[in-house]
Amino acid sequence: MVNIAVLGYGTVGSGVVEVIDTNGAGINQRIGEKLQVKYVLDLKDFPGDPVQEKIVHDFETIIQDEEINIVVEVMGGIEPAYTFVKRSLLAGKSVATSNKALVAKHGAELLSIAKEKNINFLFEASVGGGIPIIRPLNSSLTADEIEEITGILNGTTNYMLTKMFYEGADYDTVLKEAQANGYAERNPEADVEGYDACRKIAILSSLISGNQVDFEDIYCEGITKITTEDMKYAKTMGTTIKLLASSKRDGSRLHAIVAPCMLYPEHPLYNVNGVFNAIFVHGNVLGDAMFYGSGAGKLPTASAVVADVVDAAKHLNRNIMTMWKQEKLTLEDKGDAKRRFFIRMKGDEEEMRKDLEYSFGEIEIVKVPGLEGEFGIVTPVMMEGDYDTRANRYKDQILHMIRIEDQKA
Amino acid sequence: MVNIAVLGYGTVGSGVVEVIDTNGAGINQRIGEKLQVKYVLDLKDFPGDPVQEKIVHDFETIIQDEEINIVVEVMGGIEPAYTFVKRSLLAGKSVATSNKALVAKHGAELLSIAKEKNINFLFEASVGGGIPIIRPLNSSLTADEIEEITGILNGTTNYMLTKMFYEGADYDTVLKEAQANGYAERNPEADVEGYDACRKIAILSSLISGNQVDFEDIYCEGITKITTEDMKYAKTMGTTIKLLASSKRDGSRLHAIVAPCMLYPEHPLYNVNGVFNAIFVHGNVLGDAMFYGSGAGKLPTASAVVADVVDAAKHLNRNIMTMWKQEKLTLEDKGDAKRRFFIRMKGDEEEMRKDLEYSFGEIEIVKVPGLEGEFGIVTPVMMEGDYDTRANRYKDQILHMIRIEDQKA
Repeated sequence: MVNIAVLGYGTVGSGVVEVIDTNGAGINQRIGEKLQVKYVLDLKDFPGDPVQEKIVHDFETIIQDEEINIVVEVMGGIEPAYTFVKRSLLAGKSVATSNKALVAKHGAELLSIAKEKNINFLFEASVGGGIPIIRPLNSSLTADEIEEITGILNGTTNYMLTKMFYEGADYDTVLKEAQANGYAERNPEADVEGYDACRKIAILSSLISGNQVDFEDIYCEGITKITTEDMKYAKTMGTTIKLLASSKRDGSRLHAIVAPCMLYPEHPLYNVNGVFNAIFVHGNVLGDAMFYGSGAGKLPTASAVVADVVDAAKHLNRNIMTMWKQEKLTLEDKGDAKRRFFIRMKGDEEEMRKDLEYSFGEIEIVKVPGLEGEFGIVTPVMMEGDYDTRANRYKDQILHMIRIEDQKA
Repeated sequence: MVNIAVLGYGTVGSGVVEVIDTNGAGINQRIGEKLQVKYVLDLKDFPGDPVQEKIVHDFETIIQDEEINIVVEVMGGIEPAYTFVKRSLLAGKSVATSNKALVAKHGAELLSIAKEKNINFLFEASVGGGIPIIRPLNSSLTADEIEEITGILNGTTNYMLTKMFYEGADYDTVLKEAQANGYAERNPEADVEGYDACRKIAILSSLISGNQVDFEDIYCEGITKITTEDMKYAKTMGTTIKLLASSKRDGSRLHAIVAPCMLYPEHPLYNVNGVFNAIFVHGNVLGDAMFYGSGAGKLPTASAVVADVVDAAKHLNRNIMTMWKQEKLTLEDKGDAKRRFFIRMKGDEEEMRKDLEYSFGEIEIVKVPGLEGEFGIVTPVMMEGDYDTRANRYKDQILHMIRIEDQKA
């Protein structure tokens, strides 16, 4: 018998209990022992719910019960999650969590405690919901140096951008719609400003670099400034606009960024629509790979958490996760990243062409029928710092700049 | 020190040696010990190649060397691969292989020997080349009942169908082109008749069902009959045609099939083009997921083989792979599978409409501008057995039938 305690009976926590109820037979077979939810920690009671008999209100009941092998933390937020997880690990209990804020901030420390105790701290569900990405990075892509991870890591913003692109709706309208059908929170800041995606790419960056990458250090731009006009340019150019969270390594240099980007149809992420998430990985021998699926939602997220529980149960006294060091990695300056830029400008393209060519080199001009008094240009590949310097000259004319994500050749 | 022997210095074998040379530092760090290629078994010598000093011509050298912990089998074919792999496992050496024919035929037996010996028989590279799919099924999607796996599992045919779709080229032309640039073999039968994809879906079916699925039992239809006219209908309908290998479970029933299918743009596999492979998975709690990447090629395949070597090295005395039983699973009759069908017919659609509606129910009629004297119909969802019975009445008019793959709701 493997006994677990679930901290938090919210959306993911109730999903975890449901998944174990539904697929228990297969899960027990894979573990080789019966998996049992012994406690569920929540402040509330759930009278009438079969979970009620397992509800406890005090974490001490769980930490002091030696029968508890694995603790599932699905409360979210830093505290008290951090304290509970750390105490669990120190008490020799493996932990599975879906908490991206916790992993991004304290992952290195918690992994090192798990290693010391020869147990496991697992967090598949913290990035990409149900999509397996942490475990593939940890145990499948082990022959490679990972040179790039670029993901659509937030379902809310991808849903919104998809609506804006395919239906021509404006930002405020799709936000209200997303809120109405439960895809966006009433305070949508964490999603639309890119903070959620930023914590996730910080975790992936730490994992592939082997050092702590602080999300506060990552340049993060959300989708709040994306307009219907931007989408019209994207359509004219045969591109789409996605909120990308990206981490690129070149030797010891690591560039990380969260920003809306234009993608051409050749990019594997171009066709990832609606609430789906996808993660593109480039390995130095593997080449390109992509992982796609439900990035959020009760059952997909619970599926990933329970898969971690199965793995922890199969490795009760054996540490299996690669660690990253607590030493912080200094990210490369955003100004040093090279790419092409799309710029929307006020004015007349023929009058300004020569001047722009002098500044940016060979440019491509884009005109959208019906949008008068403005035009778009696509710059050649350049460092973002150089772009900034040159764009400064046109600061009164520039309506919007959107980065272009070309696929690595 | 972990010592390995590589059986076969062909494309994949030389790739394995190259990957270990290139990424050795990272690989050793992940294993926690130095990984060394001690022997390479090949009939030929490679004078001038640094591998020459490791070349042996006799398998006995390898099997009798107790320092060899892991054997990498990348020769292909059933014999002598089967004998070498079985002897290696019986001698307590873990095996990593890319050999789909071997795994499809003898996987159950070899897995059970590995389990008995508490070592590992790993075969990530046998399906989907560099795409991680075997390990995710084995250790990531463990909270789920897998209800469907549908893949584009053969790069050669996907390259050909992509060319036919986007460039309007005919089958013979694209086959010659694929042969000229090395994507297709001089004898292309294994690819174009679907046999390669069939062995791969047999392996995946065995893995998700837990029983032996023989590839000979799977209905297998290749792409040799796909014409430029078929592609014109697909374009008109907003679909594309892909060679799909599919395995669907409904309780204890399992349907498996390899056949060219029409896909609508909403299907995650619609946009998988060129030599790329992708594998769509539906789990009962996970929902939809997809894994995409290079399905073949020297380095991607070697990346998967070496990842297996790393896993074997980290688990030298601990069996980690789920087995499937040697008892054979009886597949459901192809006639019992339900889907929609696209049919190209000779004749006049208005004259025949009533008769066809009487036979098939509510049909959709498709006309392609420029294709006179024929038309297409799309049937409602029906059992394939019922389709066969009804289609028999029109056997002199039917030019081609292509199955439609609608995504599970």
